[in-house]
Amino acid sequence: GVLGSGDFARSLAVRLVSSGFRVVVGSRNPKRKASLFPAAAEVTFQAEAAKKADVIFVAIFREHYSTLCDLADVLVGKILVDVSNNTEINHHKESNAEYLASLFPACTVVKAFNVVSAWTLQSGARDGNKQVLICSNNQEAKRTIAEIAQVMGFTPVDMGCMSSACEIENIPLRLLPAWKIPIFLALGLFLCFFTYNLIRQVIHPYIREQKNKLYKIPIEVVNTTLPCVSYVMLSLVYLPGVLAACSQLYYGTKYRRFPDWLDQWLQHRKQIGLLSFFCAALHAVYSLCLPMRRSHRYLLIETAVKQAMEKKMTIWEEEEVWRMEIYISVGIFALGLLSLLAVTSLPSIANSLNWREFSFIQ
Amino acid sequence: GVLGSGDFARSLAVRLVSSGFRVVVGSRNPKRKASLFPAAAEVTFQAEAAKKADVIFVAIFREHYSTLCDLADVLVGKILVDVSNNTEINHHKESNAEYLASLFPACTVVKAFNVVSAWTLQSGARDGNKQVLICSNNQEAKRTIAEIAQVMGFTPVDMGCMSSACEIENIPLRLLPAWKIPIFLALGLFLCFFTYNLIRQVIHPYIREQKNKLYKIPIEVVNTTLPCVSYVMLSLVYLPGVLAACSQLYYGTKYRRFPDWLDQWLQHRKQIGLLSFFCAALHAVYSLCLPMRRSHRYLLIETAVKQAMEKKMTIWEEEEVWRMEIYISVGIFALGLLSLLAVTSLPSIANSLNWREFSFIQ
Amino acid sequence: GVLGSGDFARSLAVRLVSSGFRVVVGSRNPKRKASLFPAAAEVTFQAEAAKKADVIFVAIFREHYSTLCDLADVLVGKILVDVSNNTEINHHKESNAEYLASLFPACTVVKAFNVVSAWTLQSGARDGNKQVLICSNNQEAKRTIAEIAQVMGFTPVDMGCMSSACEIENIPLRLLPAWKIPIFLALGLFLCFFTYNLIRQVIHPYIREQKNKLYKIPIEVVNTTLPCVSYVMLSLVYLPGVLAACSQLYYGTKYRRFPDWLDQWLQHRKQIGLLSFFCAALHAVYSLCLPMRRSHRYLLIETAVKQAMEKKMTIWEEEEVWRMEIYISVGIFALGLLSLLAVTSLPSIANSLNWREFSFIQ
Repeated sequence: GVLGSGDFARSLAVRLVSSGFRVVVGSRNPKRKASLFPAAAEVTFQAEAAKKADVIFVAIFREHYSTLCDLADVLVGKILVDVSNNTEINHHKESNAEYLASLFPACTVVKAFNVVSAWTLQSGARDGNKQVLICSNNQEAKRTIAEIAQVMGFTPVDMGCMSSACEIENIPLRLLPAWKIPIFLALGLFLCFFTYNLIRQVIHPYIREQKNKLYKIPIEVVNTTLPCVSYVMLSLVYLPGVLAACSQLYYGTKYRRFPDWLDQWLQHRKQIGLLSFFCAALHAVYSLCLPMRRSHRYLLIETAVKQAMEKKMTIWEEEEVWRMEIYISVGIFALGLLSLLAVTSLPSIANSLNWREFSFIQ
Repeated sequence: GVLGSGDFARSLAVRLVSSGFRVVVGSRNPKRKASLFPAAAEVTFQAEAAKKADVIFVAIFREHYSTLCDLADVLVGKILVDVSNNTEINHHKESNAEYLASLFPACTVVKAFNVVSAWTLQSGARDGNKQVLICSNNQEAKRTIAEIAQVMGFTPVDMGCMSSACEIENIPLRLLPAWKIPIFLALGLFLCFFTYNLIRQVIHPYIREQKNKLYKIPIEVVNTTLPCVSYVMLSLVYLPGVLAACSQLYYGTKYRRFPDWLDQWLQHRKQIGLLSFFCAALHAVYSLCLPMRRSHRYLLIETAVKQAMEKKMTIWEEEEVWRMEIYISVGIFALGLLSLLAVTSLPSIANSLNWREFSFIQ
Repeated sequence: GVLGSGDFARSLAVRLVSSGFRVVVGSRNPKRKASLFPAAAEVTFQAEAAKKADVIFVAIFREHYSTLCDLADVLVGKILVDVSNNTEINHHKESNAEYLASLFPACTVVKAFNVVSAWTLQSGARDGNKQVLICSNNQEAKRTIAEIAQVMGFTPVDMGCMSSACEIENIPLRLLPAWKIPIFLALGLFLCFFTYNLIRQVIHPYIREQKNKLYKIPIEVVNTTLPCVSYVMLSLVYLPGVLAACSQLYYGTKYRRFPDWLDQWLQHRKQIGLLSFFCAALHAVYSLCLPMRRSHRYLLIETAVKQAMEKKMTIWEEEEVWRMEIYISVGIFALGLLSLLAVTSLPSIANSLNWREFSFIQ
């Protein structure tokens, strides 16, 4: 049974019908809404639908849950599936599912399907193994819903008892939470090093020698800043592991929880590492662009003309040549290794590695 | 039970046996073929095998389905699994599975396993979550086969009733259908812009000033063409969304189907976007190659020699320098953003994002 | 039931409890260890736990298996799940699971969960579809464990009967076995071609003309070596397929096994191809770095000064210009195609292609 006639209710009914379930839809205005649902689904009044179905998907907004209270008698002993989402993280004190359960103490409430969008429901699960997170205080009901999700082509994931509902409801609302700190960290480091390099390469020569080097800002100053950020970020990836090991040695146990800041830090290592790789890759691209610039061309011609006018030939400085050759070689080598690390952080590749292989690559 | 003794029949028997099922193989010449099958599988005559098994995989060509008609009596009430594929899309009027069902009205026919190759069956499903698309008019039979597929290590996907059989049979024959239109679009755009740039950079200077600039064709003309194609393609990614929104506003409903051309366009956005990224990346590589060319070197030396002979020094044009610096900076920034978009289109990463994160990145 | 109180036992208990199972933990010192386990798990003496549970996870080291012999009477008829790993490949003659089965002939032993780490168990299976490989001689027990694994959020994979236990126990210990031969092959080829190019570009000019070209070693010699390695590796990807086809034509059957060396070769094609792509990509990066080098700058200025002093202008060699333009164009084209091949080797993309599409791209 599906209560509601919105987008999600429709997509759910379509998918349930095509997965071979018999579906009855409860609407407050079944005549007008019937045309929106697939022909195989029976559209009737809410009370009627609630009576006929054993498992009832409540596809209406939290604000309207109380309107269902008239059906309380019919719903006794049935499984109610809360599929709702909020518009803000931790908008209400208790999760929608717990609120529904408090309204209908005689029903078994299961939280599920809220992480799946109406669009995913309709387009089929063929292109990717979408997961459906399920939680409930009743094991039996949870298993029933898990089976339904599986037949519909989703991967059910058991999230434990009802107290996880709040967490599950927050999932569709989160916005790359793991990236926030690392990105601000990278921006902060970039600003610091950029200011330092700006003073050193542009402002200092201007004050001391009145040379106008402003043209260096967009590329050269950025290009000297990026590897600094990259190096510091890379060291921040491996530092917390060392700290954690020290803490374990100091306390002589590995069952003691790390302090919160260290725990947070350990969990953000992957993102910090990827940003470090991103900076390194940008540094490579910027460096490769250097000879394309007009300024590079002008400086080259200037040198050639000056030398030709002074009739001097020998400008080959062996040390300068070697420094550049080695610098470039080592740079390519380092970027190659970082790329390897970045590739293994792709979920589909990380899953195919065992722990020993992963730590070997690290 | 498995009827047939070809490649697929063998691989199927091997996999079923190793998944713990008892397998009986029906062959027209059991003595000669027995050596091809694993020892644990019983190889016998077709009638014998059909009698012993409840679920029978029909691993023979559609052309030979009629040879099974002798077994009609033995097969009554059993589940026949059609695993066949065609050699051409929509080769026959009705799908193989529907044809089989019409020959054996007293059996339950299920379409399944045709999207899995004999090679995948033998190599095990360990390296990737291969899906098995299943359809049938009988829910009970469909669930039985789904369970078998699961035990064998595949992910069963319910595709609804028998009328989907045709669609399922076409899947192994399709050849990147979603890419056809975007690729022809990109080629068409490339040709147009290439012609324009060829006339502008090579033919026009030749006619007006008799300058031979033919050497520009392989790299410089291509390099000015690529970003044009990339820009137009990128705008074609975001245009249909705007059109769709306008259409919804105009008709005042989101339940009205879009016209076919708009629907097609909306569905090809990902491919168009990836081709746009591909052109942008090629443009970056071409641009980086510019200073490597002989012609670049010759022109540089020519300028230097000319200036040295004319004894003039000052060629530093501040505006030219800044134009190039800013152009390169913005180019790198744009390519970085496009790369991010391209990375999130990888299935394994797209699956780990929720809708809010995906639209934020877009 | 879980026997043991180590890291793995704890993580297992935590996960089982949060998946809705009732868990009893058997420890030799239940009072001291109880604080390590979740409150919902009952921690008691081993005999007590063995009595209460039907499915018992044996989370202790192989060396201590014999200490369980006291419980033999209580364990009769129960399912023992061996989750142990070894520290070396093929460390013992028989697998841990087979050893456990020999100690408790009255129990049903299932090998499972050893490929999952304690960390994965605790962090939840949400981020990736981790597989649990299962084998046992008893189908019923295998299916019970598979269901438990599924409820816990893992993908159970049936690996057949007990003789596969050894293979399953070796999986967490393997270290990129498929990459060993291809990497040594690439290194060998690199050394050969590097020596040849070193002699040709550095040693020969030094001996014949006393010219010091040592500065070419880190970049130029490496850069001429990489495409040679890449080409040979690429041809080694497609050669074994041709050999296999010839062998099939010669013997007139495709059911004859290939000789071992050919079989090995065929299985390493993907890795050889990826290394070929890696060398090609490195070659591209090295080539793009060429104009950044000091030596390039010095040679350029030298030529310009020399020409200016000799007052000669015409150095434009049409053939040289065209050779370079075409060389770069073809190089970019080839790298683009190789990148496409490399992208399709990502597991998540390879899974979304059917056989016809995959061979089309190849």
